[in-house]
Amino acid sequence: MLRSSIYHRPKNNFAYAYDEETLHIRLQAQKGDLQDVTLIHGDPYIWENGEWIYSTSSMKLVGSDDLFDYWQAIICPPHARLRYGFICNDGKESLTYTERGFFEDVPTHCHYYFAFPFLNKIDVFSPPSWVKDTVWYQIFPERFGNGNPKLNPTNTLSWGETPTQSSFFGGDFEGVINHLDHLIELGINGIYFTPIFKAMTNHKYDTIDYFEIDPHFGDKETFKRLVDECHKRDIKIMLDAVFNHSGYYFEPFQDVIKYGESSKYKDWFHIAKFPLNPGNQLSYRTFSFEPTMPKLNTENKDVQNYLLEVAEYWIREFDIDGWRLDVANEVDHHFWRLFRNRVKAIKPDAYILGEIWHDAMPWLQGDQFDAVMNYRFTNAAIDFFAKKQTTVEQFQNELVHVLQSYPQHVNEVAFNLLGSHDTARILTVCEEDTNRLKLLYLFQLSFTGTPCIYYGDEIGMTGGDDPLCRKCMEWDENKQDLELFHFVQKLISLRQQSPAFSKGEFSFHAINESLVSYRKTLGDEELLIIINPTNRSLKVKFPTSFADSIDLWTNKH
Amino acid sequence: MLRSSIYHRPKNNFAYAYDEETLHIRLQAQKGDLQDVTLIHGDPYIWENGEWIYSTSSMKLVGSDDLFDYWQAIICPPHARLRYGFICNDGKESLTYTERGFFEDVPTHCHYYFAFPFLNKIDVFSPPSWVKDTVWYQIFPERFGNGNPKLNPTNTLSWGETPTQSSFFGGDFEGVINHLDHLIELGINGIYFTPIFKAMTNHKYDTIDYFEIDPHFGDKETFKRLVDECHKRDIKIMLDAVFNHSGYYFEPFQDVIKYGESSKYKDWFHIAKFPLNPGNQLSYRTFSFEPTMPKLNTENKDVQNYLLEVAEYWIREFDIDGWRLDVANEVDHHFWRLFRNRVKAIKPDAYILGEIWHDAMPWLQGDQFDAVMNYRFTNAAIDFFAKKQTTVEQFQNELVHVLQSYPQHVNEVAFNLLGSHDTARILTVCEEDTNRLKLLYLFQLSFTGTPCIYYGDEIGMTGGDDPLCRKCMEWDENKQDLELFHFVQKLISLRQQSPAFSKGEFSFHAINESLVSYRKTLGDEELLIIINPTNRSLKVKFPTSFADSIDLWTNKH
Repeated sequence: MLRSSIYHRPKNNFAYAYDEETLHIRLQAQKGDLQDVTLIHGDPYIWENGEWIYSTSSMKLVGSDDLFDYWQAIICPPHARLRYGFICNDGKESLTYTERGFFEDVPTHCHYYFAFPFLNKIDVFSPPSWVKDTVWYQIFPERFGNGNPKLNPTNTLSWGETPTQSSFFGGDFEGVINHLDHLIELGINGIYFTPIFKAMTNHKYDTIDYFEIDPHFGDKETFKRLVDECHKRDIKIMLDAVFNHSGYYFEPFQDVIKYGESSKYKDWFHIAKFPLNPGNQLSYRTFSFEPTMPKLNTENKDVQNYLLEVAEYWIREFDIDGWRLDVANEVDHHFWRLFRNRVKAIKPDAYILGEIWHDAMPWLQGDQFDAVMNYRFTNAAIDFFAKKQTTVEQFQNELVHVLQSYPQHVNEVAFNLLGSHDTARILTVCEEDTNRLKLLYLFQLSFTGTPCIYYGDEIGMTGGDDPLCRKCMEWDENKQDLELFHFVQKLISLRQQSPAFSKGEFSFHAINESLVSYRKTLGDEELLIIINPTNRSLKVKFPTSFADSIDLWTNKH
Repeated sequence: MLRSSIYHRPKNNFAYAYDEETLHIRLQAQKGDLQDVTLIHGDPYIWENGEWIYSTSSMKLVGSDDLFDYWQAIICPPHARLRYGFICNDGKESLTYTERGFFEDVPTHCHYYFAFPFLNKIDVFSPPSWVKDTVWYQIFPERFGNGNPKLNPTNTLSWGETPTQSSFFGGDFEGVINHLDHLIELGINGIYFTPIFKAMTNHKYDTIDYFEIDPHFGDKETFKRLVDECHKRDIKIMLDAVFNHSGYYFEPFQDVIKYGESSKYKDWFHIAKFPLNPGNQLSYRTFSFEPTMPKLNTENKDVQNYLLEVAEYWIREFDIDGWRLDVANEVDHHFWRLFRNRVKAIKPDAYILGEIWHDAMPWLQGDQFDAVMNYRFTNAAIDFFAKKQTTVEQFQNELVHVLQSYPQHVNEVAFNLLGSHDTARILTVCEEDTNRLKLLYLFQLSFTGTPCIYYGDEIGMTGGDDPLCRKCMEWDENKQDLELFHFVQKLISLRQQSPAFSKGEFSFHAINESLVSYRKTLGDEELLIIINPTNRSLKVKFPTSFADSIDLWTNKH
């Protein structure tokens, strides 16, 4: 047995409370090494005649990637307490794996075993229930619709011209309200807006005033109307909180520039020495090395109070439904815990989404975020479907690895995107091959999690990295790819029609090495999805259990 | 290369901030598999000509156990941000291990790599600095000294009789004050008191009133005097907070018994159905299945406020230095975060010690505890020195495993005990062989962490499990093992004399398979400690580097 490949450690993705009553226990082992795994488990306080009383449960092989098999058991401990270990059998030997290592004999004292000491409800990761049913649509407000030309910046270009990093096109809230029909027709039910607060740039990630709407976008009254119009249509609203850094023209930062060490805001930032030097040798911390984005000192109580008041204000006064947190991984965990407590106190079902591009387990333990922007999904999906750089096997392995690295309920609300204002447009990444994009959409919209569509991607807009991925929304139907639009629309409608399509339990089932095939299961409903990413037709034999099934796409037998 | 045995995941013990500037990065690999490991690392925002700029650093093999080698690098990222991966070389192939898996070529984009996004000071695990220099002494107040017979319970037995689980002997604060000389002579500088608040039992783990001193122990004035007398002698005071459960006679619980569902305290506990049934089929949650210890609902805001006020009160009014948290692992993490914030706000260098017998990484990330009762150390040390159940190799492997499972600064303040009121006395576990116990003390007092001596162990008291491990302190010098006392005293004095002895970096260095040998290094000072656990004398060859050294025990060359 390959003992050194067997891994388990309580909490994180290996042992977690799925809900108030249920624990998921997982074990990772070298692929193919173990024939079966049995979980030994019991309450640490139940003893009879000096012996610890335990039960055993078979563990299920729930996934495999290139290196590992993942075994899982689901346990509801009656007294909310658990000690447990693993009897690993590779056909040649049987060893019990515990916190103190491997034993040939099953240790009889519960002190040897792993502990999930108590399932406390308040610690359970519990994202809002509506998120699983949401299809998001990301809007970059400066480029979606110009509904009120009176608000145009002085240097506004004509709608549709090629943007530079500094161009303005006059997009605004009125423009969004005018085009809500498009979103309803598409079928989405959540909008994620990149920042809308007063700022200098077109992207508004350099906030000047967190309590003010950017005047080019509208005013608070218009924003309120936008939220109301969306809520009337059952569309949730998520705003972008840029709390890692402010803009250069944020008043407290201007105060520090002006008054230096005697500024009452000097501890609001990370300043190495005075006077501030926004030149080559930065004397203060920033986002990246961007002098116009000074990093906020979120360890400072005044900064905390200010930002928490911002977080509360837009929920309390405008009833927004979620916060997307910019550069969330560079802000301290301590602040995010305060943030969660404050936000959930005023709106318990608000959604908290962190911008984290990498493995985000430390932020997804129930005390900080509900989800992160799942670029790990994006990377795997793009490398396979769009760039054709990976094999079916590599693609599946990478996704299983990502899924198994998180608890199940984390995956269920993962924010799965194909692209954003920070990446080249997905059709461009697909080398403008709409067929590849369609397969990507099929996969994204049937995968575990909550998908997000970047404005315009659904009608075949193209563009490379920023600024080209931020072109004005194309409203001329003649220039829209309506077939693509209807394809995406249909996929979204399938999510409503078939709960298994959106929320079913996901698992790959190999049918043919050239095909991506997977099942989604929910209650009695079982779906088989087969994707042919090649350019040739392939004949496949359906599993017999699907012989009498309905084709969900055509709705025929 | 055994890819499936290579493990790393950021945060926890594998990548953590050691201080405000320093990251420790660790990799686990199959024992003997890798010849060298190189860390690739860089700032995610430093790019030149479209290429990510990274550096490389050799990783050091810092420990091995039966299954794994542990590699470590120490990095101070100039901008507090890090992306990193591992070039693993087994002599036959060289592979780069990243968040996205293994690659033959070194990936050039930093998105592939592991992330430690930002070293935020507030998130750094930072226990009080005085703890490293502390030797604790655990006192069970009912059994240490009877200084004021007027406070004796009515059924007090004669000092020194064999205790039952319900006996009383009249131990009190006055008794502790009277015997402070003993503690000063021994050399300890911290006292951990098991509970002192008003309760029914002799052990006081069934609190009636968290704001009152148990009248058998004294009053608040006496307790204040005790704290002051200790502080005058540079002895810290740690109290026991029993927040997992109250006692049966805790007023709110009595109120629930009396008024059932209409009690205003009904949500202070976990009650399945009314009326309460303390019989065989408990209708409420308890510690273990103990009807007299109803579990407190620490998710309830009133309970939180009550207990947090308790935590603050004894610090504010009596200036205690630390809290030991009973059954800490069964209380929710959310509560412990509130607890830490409240305690550290009023006394930033208070010590927070959790009673957790198993792997406690989820509580030791900087947001909850400063340390846990390190029974993982206890088990390994006892099985080897006291029970002679394990080999030198097994013992070393188990300790390396424990050390590597935690960050270095967690180990530096681990609360290393040989026994407590919950276990048989250590001399009894040693089958009354004082030689074994001496070696245990030598090891405990020279190991990484902060040691604790259970009252009376230092003078050779014996006794099996509770109640026999709670016998009255033996004050008759004729019945004390004074040689043992002087041995322990000398070890403690060596900790003061040689900072390397107490705080040096620990590492095993095999000299002979029958001996336990290790080094402790601090600055220029390097100690070699060799323990012969056999009953025979062994000749060993000293490493030449120690040829001209001083014998710390005799202070001679």
